[in-house]
Amino acid sequence: MSEKLFEELEKTSNLIYDKMDDLIPEIDGSRVGESRLSRAMRYTALSEGKRIRPFLVMKSAGLFGVSESSAAQVASAIEFIHAYSLIHDDLPALDDDDVRRGKPSCHVAFDEATAILAGDALLTYAFEVISHPSTHADSKVIAELVQSVAKAIGAGGMIGGQMIDIMSEDKELNIEEITRLQRMKTSALFAISCESGAILGKAPFTLRNALRGYAYDIGLAFQITDDLLDAQISNDDESQRVNKSEEKGTYVSIMGVEKSKKQTEMLCEQAISHLEVFGKSPQSELLKDLARYIVNRKN
Amino acid sequence: MSEKLFEELEKTSNLIYDKMDDLIPEIDGSRVGESRLSRAMRYTALSEGKRIRPFLVMKSAGLFGVSESSAAQVASAIEFIHAYSLIHDDLPALDDDDVRRGKPSCHVAFDEATAILAGDALLTYAFEVISHPSTHADSKVIAELVQSVAKAIGAGGMIGGQMIDIMSEDKELNIEEITRLQRMKTSALFAISCESGAILGKAPFTLRNALRGYAYDIGLAFQITDDLLDAQISNDDESQRVNKSEEKGTYVSIMGVEKSKKQTEMLCEQAISHLEVFGKSPQSELLKDLARYIVNRKN
Repeated sequence: MSEKLFEELEKTSNLIYDKMDDLIPEIDGSRVGESRLSRAMRYTALSEGKRIRPFLVMKSAGLFGVSESSAAQVASAIEFIHAYSLIHDDLPALDDDDVRRGKPSCHVAFDEATAILAGDALLTYAFEVISHPSTHADSKVIAELVQSVAKAIGAGGMIGGQMIDIMSEDKELNIEEITRLQRMKTSALFAISCESGAILGKAPFTLRNALRGYAYDIGLAFQITDDLLDAQISNDDESQRVNKSEEKGTYVSIMGVEKSKKQTEMLCEQAISHLEVFGKSPQSELLKDLARYIVNRKN
Repeated sequence: MSEKLFEELEKTSNLIYDKMDDLIPEIDGSRVGESRLSRAMRYTALSEGKRIRPFLVMKSAGLFGVSESSAAQVASAIEFIHAYSLIHDDLPALDDDDVRRGKPSCHVAFDEATAILAGDALLTYAFEVISHPSTHADSKVIAELVQSVAKAIGAGGMIGGQMIDIMSEDKELNIEEITRLQRMKTSALFAISCESGAILGKAPFTLRNALRGYAYDIGLAFQITDDLLDAQISNDDESQRVNKSEEKGTYVSIMGVEKSKKQTEMLCEQAISHLEVFGKSPQSELLKDLARYIVNRKN
């Protein structure tokens, strides 16, 4: 990773951590329901993470001179959505993962009922945060953000991808099906992260579309790289996730390691080419560095 | 029930059914994820129901001359939120109810994973529908709707109420706690149903507040009446829900049948008095009739 990217990722991560910390207050025990929900929401949203999606929001917004506070508001909402999706994905009825980011999953640390409701609350809160008047002075921008985010994460996007993933547990998918699944499950949230920066900046359609293309490419590259990393350590029995990915069939298990690696490199180049239209601004250079990091990372 | 109210409830119910039927299209099997989600979403959202919340939206909106199509759009979104809350409430980890509205619950008819995701998708879709440009020409109205709905159903509202309900399963609540739980769990959605009519109509704060007061009163009256009806048939072993209500302690189990009945009558009168400010318009008369029906209903 370039030093600059490392610094900027850390800076964004700290900024968004503080923002999320402010947004989900700790609630005293007299309000039992909110207090427990707030603890469970904070437990997952504030846990360690790369914060790639908030980074995409911040840097895309930066391309259009959006204020940091507006961008951080939306970036936090997107991270709440990511946290909700992790909590629900980890539930016993779905992926049944007991460990997330090195800690017990939300339903293990609390219980299943709390995890389901905390996920619901994070998703709902994301829309409350996006629609808050402090997000943008122009209500048209807020309405468009809500509309685009809801579409990206709904039945035709992230949730639909999760549904396909669950349904394909006992079934071999072909490459087209896997690619479509990943576009919905992973890339749709990457894409709306970039697009919301463009929406905040009232960017013209062509630039919004360029960011969208970039995001879909790095989203798929991200997923294939995950599978490659899983394949490398697939002898490690402790990692439930690895075993599950192997059972289900992944890009890597079908295409093989070499071809998959080539594919991530191609996607990385393609992602970078989408950004040429922005010239060599600091933000677009960081987004290009991120694409390179995503395919070269070791964890 | 007055004949007029009966007719109007049926009219609204049919209108909203058709609208929801349009909004959640049936999706062909080639798109496996969306197709399964759409079937599960439709299964619960389109199942039999009184559609009281959509009725509240429609009639409140009618007080301010809001177009039927705007109001029906928001009313459908509110009903999607109601359906999502039913699906998640019924899950084994929460209320563990196998039957809903005389049919197998969503997780029984499909499976738990699908039910969790269909609930998520309905909640998400509600925000997509509300923020659609066709809801209102003024984006400020849309942004305010999203903000108010998200607040009403979040950790400080409906989801928080559900959390308290789950936490109190093995614990006797006192009357204040039960009242607070019901305000959050049931009345918050009633209140936002009425308020969204007022928001659509850009109503002044005093009138919005009057509707809010009305909604909180009928919300609590609705819940106590439910408990009274449960208590009446509590010897019927087939009804799991009855037994569960009895275990947990309800308004009725603490205050007794007579006092609870009196309380619902008082709440009904109070609800009606909130509406005096609207004079004798057709809509306000129907809302008053609804308050009377809610406390006098037999099921």
